[in-house]
Amino acid sequence: METLTHRPDLVISGGTLLTMVDGAAPLEKATIRIGSGRIIGIDTTPEGQTADAEALDRIDATGCIVMPGLVNAHTHAAMTLFRGYADDLPLQQWLFERIFPAEAAFLSDDTVYWGALLGCLEMIASGTTCFADGYFFQDATARAVRKAGLRAVIAQGVIDFPAPGVPDPADNIREACAFMKRWQGASDRITPGIFCHSPLTCSAATLKAGAEAAERYGTPFQIHLSETRGEVDQILHQTAKRPVFYLNDLGVLNDRMTAAHAVHLDRDEMGLIKERGVRLVNVPESNMKLASGVAPVISLLRLGIPMGLGTDGCCSNNNLDMFQEMDTAAKVSKVFSADPVALTARDVLPMATSLGAAVLGLEDRIGTVEAGKAADLIVIDLQKPHLRPVYDPYSALVYAASGGDVRDTIVEGRILMRNRSFLTLDANEIMRKVSAIAQRITAATAVLNQTSAPLASTQET
Amino acid sequence: METLTHRPDLVISGGTLLTMVDGAAPLEKATIRIGSGRIIGIDTTPEGQTADAEALDRIDATGCIVMPGLVNAHTHAAMTLFRGYADDLPLQQWLFERIFPAEAAFLSDDTVYWGALLGCLEMIASGTTCFADGYFFQDATARAVRKAGLRAVIAQGVIDFPAPGVPDPADNIREACAFMKRWQGASDRITPGIFCHSPLTCSAATLKAGAEAAERYGTPFQIHLSETRGEVDQILHQTAKRPVFYLNDLGVLNDRMTAAHAVHLDRDEMGLIKERGVRLVNVPESNMKLASGVAPVISLLRLGIPMGLGTDGCCSNNNLDMFQEMDTAAKVSKVFSADPVALTARDVLPMATSLGAAVLGLEDRIGTVEAGKAADLIVIDLQKPHLRPVYDPYSALVYAASGGDVRDTIVEGRILMRNRSFLTLDANEIMRKVSAIAQRITAATAVLNQTSAPLASTQET
Repeated sequence: METLTHRPDLVISGGTLLTMVDGAAPLEKATIRIGSGRIIGIDTTPEGQTADAEALDRIDATGCIVMPGLVNAHTHAAMTLFRGYADDLPLQQWLFERIFPAEAAFLSDDTVYWGALLGCLEMIASGTTCFADGYFFQDATARAVRKAGLRAVIAQGVIDFPAPGVPDPADNIREACAFMKRWQGASDRITPGIFCHSPLTCSAATLKAGAEAAERYGTPFQIHLSETRGEVDQILHQTAKRPVFYLNDLGVLNDRMTAAHAVHLDRDEMGLIKERGVRLVNVPESNMKLASGVAPVISLLRLGIPMGLGTDGCCSNNNLDMFQEMDTAAKVSKVFSADPVALTARDVLPMATSLGAAVLGLEDRIGTVEAGKAADLIVIDLQKPHLRPVYDPYSALVYAASGGDVRDTIVEGRILMRNRSFLTLDANEIMRKVSAIAQRITAATAVLNQTSAPLASTQET
Repeated sequence: METLTHRPDLVISGGTLLTMVDGAAPLEKATIRIGSGRIIGIDTTPEGQTADAEALDRIDATGCIVMPGLVNAHTHAAMTLFRGYADDLPLQQWLFERIFPAEAAFLSDDTVYWGALLGCLEMIASGTTCFADGYFFQDATARAVRKAGLRAVIAQGVIDFPAPGVPDPADNIREACAFMKRWQGASDRITPGIFCHSPLTCSAATLKAGAEAAERYGTPFQIHLSETRGEVDQILHQTAKRPVFYLNDLGVLNDRMTAAHAVHLDRDEMGLIKERGVRLVNVPESNMKLASGVAPVISLLRLGIPMGLGTDGCCSNNNLDMFQEMDTAAKVSKVFSADPVALTARDVLPMATSLGAAVLGLEDRIGTVEAGKAADLIVIDLQKPHLRPVYDPYSALVYAASGGDVRDTIVEGRILMRNRSFLTLDANEIMRKVSAIAQRITAATAVLNQTSAPLASTQET
């Protein structure tokens, strides 16, 4: 790890630091010095707290937890546009009758930009500093991330039917390659990638071309894998192979792959995933809401497979709150395995930080608080009724906190939210723009919920 | 419904009102007039919004949802004292090795008072205006509720081994009766009751005496019912009957009973519950965290059995946030029944309002917003990144909101929280007192988590 020794740009002191380094205990009254966007040093001596008088800026974290910013390892940020647009429906109807048509009609460079900005705003507000995004019009998402100051792996969607922004499926791979080329090296905080939607919605040829493109550009390859039992059955029917074996035989199963969901896997598939170095993302709330199932997280972690945590998009969750996701991840794994000791607070917090970083291939830069790493940090205010008392900070974060308890959010040493005020984004403008887009969607599709229908005037006295 | 016509004490206007009256659509720009603690009238005409200039106080709810305060139908408020004290453990070890000993050592009139006050503070902050509480030292809980200004059914705990505050089990029923006598009619907002801990921890004689006491005082009878499979098996083994039939044969199964958990029920038990008019409480997060199972909520609601929603105490959740509880209730029922249409947002919101009120026997006074009912209301601020856009207010509340989005909390027309400032309680004092109690618990029991152990000084430069 490289050591930088110059005047700190920012000093955070007084808090309880969870470094999320394996096996490390929390550090009380830790002072974290930050320079040029990186962590220069960590100090727990009394002198540490009063030193660095020459720092450009200081954050007093007394009574707070300081920890790595959370990593949302699977989402579709711009789907904030459709938050609450289609709930409580069967997955196929939800996807093919509501979501895909709405995306086809309303996604554009402009709407994805504002939707992604709203997602970024929500993530900043709830302590996520890095996310993995798979969607369409990803130039717009990348511009939103650049403006927000967040860090992201942004993958251009590839699907074998006309997709938003790519009307001819034959252009999908080419468009994704052009996207990766444009954004490679354009920003330290943005890693471009390719997102082949799923083994069902992409042909064998497309999956192979996608994997080759990822190899050529040295970028991540995202995919939805074995989300529903129906999908697994369909692939079995079409190929006589379970999905993981099908992908392996295509030659696309390798350590560039980040596979989200991974709900319906058999033991042999898990072994093959381990062998090929595939990284996985647990997406519990979305899998619950769409009744897809619960991923075998405990078995996968026990095999040593890197597994992060993700919220999925806002149509199937319906928020991007990684604190609530951690809570639900632990609880649903316990009840599904009938084992209250399964997936503890100490197991799940790494999934949202250090393991999540590894899943995204960013473990050298983020995921823990260590000298030399990027200063992607959050400060959580514990002076809240629902967080008192604190016997165990891990338990407080996973089982009691939610995103609204994050006070400050910092990426590469830059404060994006301070005392819950946004410093890079105009929250009111973004919310206004997205509400206007939503009004257009509501008006045009006339898929009004009964509650949005014109209301009878009611007078009760 | 009685109609009061005098000058309103409080007028809430401009918001979207969810009355939670069966089948009623949301009312846009509703004006709610409140006098003498009750709702005097609801008006959606443009004039309604500017009328009542003579009101003593006004709340502008523009851009907000106004709805009945939430009903937490099963909790143990003072267990905030032990929030995060014992997590990720098997239920029997958790209860018998950690919780019961800690309660025996540390509960007193003083600690329960401060613990219950912290619970009240958290509930006010997250939009719960009424709760059902079963615990020990319930005079202290009742004093806390009176001070906080909340509404509650407060039941004195009965258990057949030495309990906190009642060292001789022979006194349990007598103490509970004395408690009910003291608090009956003492406050409009407090309903005393008796809480027989469970069919396993109370003998047949105690259960009968408890039910008789409830009958004599005309009060609710709370119980934990069929929370775990092990408990059901044990009762089967001891009595050769499933728990609901055992209780029925004892003569205690009737419409005074509010049974929490109800996870492991067979069809015949469900039928008997329906027949006897027993009310139930779904407690999903606690049942998930302790891996007890998932209650058959959909079957129970389909039978027309009134079922509320509860958080349980802060040792097994670990917060009292009913918004998160609604979200999890819907999602876990979907994934457990493999049906994404099961337990929709429109099903679950009544469980936390109108149905919850019915479960507590308070449906004539609270649970919906109607003229004549008590003015127990909450205002939820929708101008938050994670709540935009709003296609459907039910969906926004259940799937996207959390307790921290509640802006104002009102009970009997009295504002307990306004713009997130507490008006009846001193939050800092309560958090300080409870933290001091927690420090005593930590020091005395030496059950420190490794993370609370003395920390090595760490210097990294």
